[in-house]
Amino acid sequence: MYNALKQRVLDANLKLPKYGLVTFTWGNVSEIDRQLGVIAIKPSGVEYDGMEVDDIVVVDLDGHIIEGHLNPSSDTATHIELYKAYPSIGGVVHTHSRSATIWAQAGIDIPALGTTHADYFYGDIPCTRKLSYDEISGPYEQNTGLVIIEEFKHRNIDPMAVPSVIVAGHAPFSWGKDANDAVHNAVVLEEISAMALATRSLNSGIKIQPELSDKHYLRKHGDNAYYGQR
Amino acid sequence: MYNALKQRVLDANLKLPKYGLVTFTWGNVSEIDRQLGVIAIKPSGVEYDGMEVDDIVVVDLDGHIIEGHLNPSSDTATHIELYKAYPSIGGVVHTHSRSATIWAQAGIDIPALGTTHADYFYGDIPCTRKLSYDEISGPYEQNTGLVIIEEFKHRNIDPMAVPSVIVAGHAPFSWGKDANDAVHNAVVLEEISAMALATRSLNSGIKIQPELSDKHYLRKHGDNAYYGQR
Amino acid sequence: MYNALKQRVLDANLKLPKYGLVTFTWGNVSEIDRQLGVIAIKPSGVEYDGMEVDDIVVVDLDGHIIEGHLNPSSDTATHIELYKAYPSIGGVVHTHSRSATIWAQAGIDIPALGTTHADYFYGDIPCTRKLSYDEISGPYEQNTGLVIIEEFKHRNIDPMAVPSVIVAGHAPFSWGKDANDAVHNAVVLEEISAMALATRSLNSGIKIQPELSDKHYLRKHGDNAYYGQR
Amino acid sequence: MYNALKQRVLDANLKLPKYGLVTFTWGNVSEIDRQLGVIAIKPSGVEYDGMEVDDIVVVDLDGHIIEGHLNPSSDTATHIELYKAYPSIGGVVHTHSRSATIWAQAGIDIPALGTTHADYFYGDIPCTRKLSYDEISGPYEQNTGLVIIEEFKHRNIDPMAVPSVIVAGHAPFSWGKDANDAVHNAVVLEEISAMALATRSLNSGIKIQPELSDKHYLRKHGDNAYYGQR
Repeated sequence: MYNALKQRVLDANLKLPKYGLVTFTWGNVSEIDRQLGVIAIKPSGVEYDGMEVDDIVVVDLDGHIIEGHLNPSSDTATHIELYKAYPSIGGVVHTHSRSATIWAQAGIDIPALGTTHADYFYGDIPCTRKLSYDEISGPYEQNTGLVIIEEFKHRNIDPMAVPSVIVAGHAPFSWGKDANDAVHNAVVLEEISAMALATRSLNSGIKIQPELSDKHYLRKHGDNAYYGQR
Repeated sequence: MYNALKQRVLDANLKLPKYGLVTFTWGNVSEIDRQLGVIAIKPSGVEYDGMEVDDIVVVDLDGHIIEGHLNPSSDTATHIELYKAYPSIGGVVHTHSRSATIWAQAGIDIPALGTTHADYFYGDIPCTRKLSYDEISGPYEQNTGLVIIEEFKHRNIDPMAVPSVIVAGHAPFSWGKDANDAVHNAVVLEEISAMALATRSLNSGIKIQPELSDKHYLRKHGDNAYYGQR
Repeated sequence: MYNALKQRVLDANLKLPKYGLVTFTWGNVSEIDRQLGVIAIKPSGVEYDGMEVDDIVVVDLDGHIIEGHLNPSSDTATHIELYKAYPSIGGVVHTHSRSATIWAQAGIDIPALGTTHADYFYGDIPCTRKLSYDEISGPYEQNTGLVIIEEFKHRNIDPMAVPSVIVAGHAPFSWGKDANDAVHNAVVLEEISAMALATRSLNSGIKIQPELSDKHYLRKHGDNAYYGQR
Repeated sequence: MYNALKQRVLDANLKLPKYGLVTFTWGNVSEIDRQLGVIAIKPSGVEYDGMEVDDIVVVDLDGHIIEGHLNPSSDTATHIELYKAYPSIGGVVHTHSRSATIWAQAGIDIPALGTTHADYFYGDIPCTRKLSYDEISGPYEQNTGLVIIEEFKHRNIDPMAVPSVIVAGHAPFSWGKDANDAVHNAVVLEEISAMALATRSLNSGIKIQPELSDKHYLRKHGDNAYYGQR
């Protein structure tokens, strides 16, 4: 019943090592089937080498296992909060990819500095506030999701226009219309994070021109987009 | 009729992932046949994996499709302006290769700091001025080409002696006598961009000796060149 | 008699080039069989390509060769001291992996800056004091082990909670419950070392929140761990 | 007659792309047969892919071609000067490997900062003075060799104890007892150059302890060496 969904989630997870976004098991991708009300997600702490479609875990929106013989990712509760808050997203990915994690550890937003960024992200990529002692001691993974959602709401950022976040002291989450699209955004996030590190080191005050950001984002997104095959 | 041209353009495009210059579809190479008045170029937003010779698009110098079933690269108008302005060039390439893009985002010329640079580029590689609001709102890709040409003219730089540019806030363009030669220059540009970043970090005021730049450039170019098999 | 032990040590050594932790022969992994009182270790100065199980050397806890036709690693005496001092460890690895070695050369502890670090290491990774002239002139490799042990004791660090160290002016050592686990920790050490370099460059004063460090470490270690398949 | 020599030189040249030391044709390795008074060297400007043993050029110590159908490397005259001045060396290699070239462009000696350096190089790796206008205008490649030799003599450095140099504004040369050993040293040079860049960025005043440098160098070199299989 869930085989096509699980296969897409397996394929998307296997792209993480392919694109160099993960060491060992440090990442997880999920996709939601909103009609069936289920999420398929990577099992916790399992290596990518040899992972098979039946290792993918299907959970409902309360995190209960519907199908699968393994525990789901320990970050499942974060994914669930994002799916609940953002009805337009269909896939979520979490990694500790090096350059994005560096910005997360530094606790600094990833600044929009060029068209590579603007092609995918409409403005800076926010770094969340730190979680409080109580948020960490309580349902930590769920609270991670809630703090992400709070940050976007507080700053009035559209999560579809900025489909990534970095969690302070931790690492990035990305999302998209499905699992594959979420991973695509995670790859872009890592590349622009690396570029931004060195750009700021060369020229500490630089920012992209707002009109150039608009142009590149709208060249690829929305009704007047003309990039690609349409 | 255009098969040999299209094959060369396909081969040159496939060198972009081979040399690590592109993520996903972020790059495009073209070559001109000046006798036939046509340009063959990568299709827009198409992955390199599985790209075939018939996916390459042939356009005339007004950008109209002459042959091909896909849309040409969204950057086609930039390529066309460069071909019109520089009669000696036969190939153009655009990438977002990491280190060259870092310099573009920083808005700083890539300085000539050693013989690796001087072997291919006779002097600093210019960063264009920013495009104006009107240039961005208007025919943006064409204006990108015009701003490149203005920069070389304004600074009195010979585009055959400095076959690359970085566009402020955006990324590099390179060119050469054909598509393959343009990609060769793009690979060199990326390497010297990476070297220049760390060199300036070690010694912020350093420049190459002018006589050493002359020597290395003229060792490989012009009537008295003696590098390679002649 | 020692074949299974030697095979595990060979397999763990071959992971060093696989994970990019070594150039040429610059690394060595050992595992102890505490019941038999022997250690199996890489031979000294031998390339990983073509290394076979019979090249692995078995020594006793005085460093005398019990089995094998080659000299053991010149760092064997360091391994022996660590096994003697830390009864819980079963494997030791030494590399000159780039980023961890950079911190060792700089003589600075690798600071805990995020959850990637906290998932494996409970606090900063200590850099030892410099060895004295006499310690270097005397039994140097043994003294390297003794200085590591002194550093952990002096700072009251549990070597099982921080399973790595960097030796001032030299390079890292990691350990674990067996050879494979030690190499796993060495891979993590290299990744967090690289992240810490750039994080400190972006934000020189940053530290991880202590409660976040607790949470991530205890999520994976101890009685209440819930990461992975348990 | 020269086949074994040419084969060794071909093999050593092919290690340059294997170890990531070259882009395109930017490197060359030679070996001398001192009894026959000939040097075998890479041809100029020829790609490594598809290079065959008969492409290797044999020249005498005046640079005249003894055997081969191609022009020898344009840097042949530098190799010849090094062979003439240093009777103990049997192989020479020139690359533009990234990190060593960065130090050359910065015009700064590569400082000895740890045991990785000390295992191979007994002290800092010197950066030559700049060549004068006349030295560049005259027999440039020969003068490059002469300036290297002058630098070692002036600083009283034993070229066998420090088997590499960086030429100001240019790139590194390494040497060894044969072509293979020279390439081995070039690989080490690149690695320690990369480590030194980041080490100095973390701790700008750091140096290796002299007694640690002595210990590691002498552990691998000279009558009392005990590293490896002896």
